Amino acid sequence: MLSNIRIVLINTSHPGNIGSAARAMKTMGLSQLYLVNPVAFPHEKAQEMASGAGDILAAAQVVLDLDQAIADCVLVIGTSTRSRTIPWPLLLPRQLAEKARETSPHPIAILFGREQSGLTNEELHRCHFHVQIPSNPDYSSLNLAAAVQIIAYELRLASLEESTQKTEWDYRPATAHEMEGFYQHLEQVLVAIDFLNPKVPRQLMTRLRRLFSRARLDAMEMNILRGILSAIRRD
Amino acid sequence: MLSNIRIVLINTSHPGNIGSAARAMKTMGLSQLYLVNPVAFPHEKAQEMASGAGDILAAAQVVLDLDQAIADCVLVIGTSTRSRTIPWPLLLPRQLAEKARETSPHPIAILFGREQSGLTNEELHRCHFHVQIPSNPDYSSLNLAAAVQIIAYELRLASLEESTQKTEWDYRPATAHEMEGFYQHLEQVLVAIDFLNPKVPRQLMTRLRRLFSRARLDAMEMNILRGILSAIRRD
Repeated sequence: MLSNIRIVLINTSHPGNIGSAARAMKTMGLSQLYLVNPVAFPHEKAQEMASGAGDILAAAQVVLDLDQAIADCVLVIGTSTRSRTIPWPLLLPRQLAEKARETSPHPIAILFGREQSGLTNEELHRCHFHVQIPSNPDYSSLNLAAAVQIIAYELRLASLEESTQKTEWDYRPATAHEMEGFYQHLEQVLVAIDFLNPKVPRQLMTRLRRLFSRARLDAMEMNILRGILSAIRRD
Repeated sequence: MLSNIRIVLINTSHPGNIGSAARAMKTMGLSQLYLVNPVAFPHEKAQEMASGAGDILAAAQVVLDLDQAIADCVLVIGTSTRSRTIPWPLLLPRQLAEKARETSPHPIAILFGREQSGLTNEELHRCHFHVQIPSNPDYSSLNLAAAVQIIAYELRLASLEESTQKTEWDYRPATAHEMEGFYQHLEQVLVAIDFLNPKVPRQLMTRLRRLFSRARLDAMEMNILRGILSAIRRD
């Protein structure tokens, strides 16, 4: 999916921003960069800001007008912060990513405008949808690379099958049987050290159960806790 | 919710990155910036990169060690790209934002490490959870401000969503300061009962830290555990 998505930077003023955008793209697995009429490119500042993403810059397509960048695309989306006189279908970045996934493997373009003035109305009208990054209404000034970073991040998430992170763990979880054995052992020790009065137990064991079950002990942790209980002296 | 979340930058080398991070924060409505032992701050490069977010820099708390930045926090999350010898509960940025919403209005810290080497193991072990931005495995080099931007973006989205199910709890969560006091107490007792050999500590305290931070103790549970430790006889 990511290989069918191109990032189109239009009339970018600062070559450093092109480099930073390339870096942002590469961190999220995007590779297709189109530069429409850049003010200065190639440029050493772009190389410097690209850091390890020089290959994206080297492969960037420099074109003279927007048509050349999007002619073969089936979905064109423009980034926009301004509201328009004629309302246009507006997406959140997450919704954009969903559209992109539905559209894959056909080519898709996402347009980013000038640092100061964004996309022109004419450019915005070439788009199927507009996307707006939800930002602080009092300070919505994301720089170009930051906007590319967020959009690219959402595209990457959408491209990943698994939507949740799965932590690799080193030991298997404790069983219910082991947990019960632990709670019994714990209770005996708490009585033996005079912390728990069996005649007035209040909610002590309930609170400890809630705590340790919330933690979802693994087998090693269970061993450690049982070991601690065994090491406690009871007079 | 956003006003209770602090961004903690640890030992940042380049002041420009501090400025860019402040800008990223402000675009998403975050305002609390803590700088632990920055290499150069204040600095004109930070001002320049902050653009319109100079107020965030002006209000930034500069502290000498991590404790001062997180002592009153009830949820501490560390950004991590490396996998650890002992696995730690790992979240996606979106899951982190969900945890942050559940934890609001109590103070929350999100730690970002050094540009080159990230967070130390010791710093990572101070965290309840780690967060990993899903990036290109062949090039995961997000710069500091880009990482802040993505996390801040997810926090903003979570802050805008309708509040979902929120578990009612009877006691407030324990603070990082209280947790440290507990770990010290626990360690002393484990040494006193000959369960922990200070000359051969292995990973015992790390595993116990991981267990209890995962459980996210409340203040009552903290009292109970401290009470148990105090009741244990040490010969």
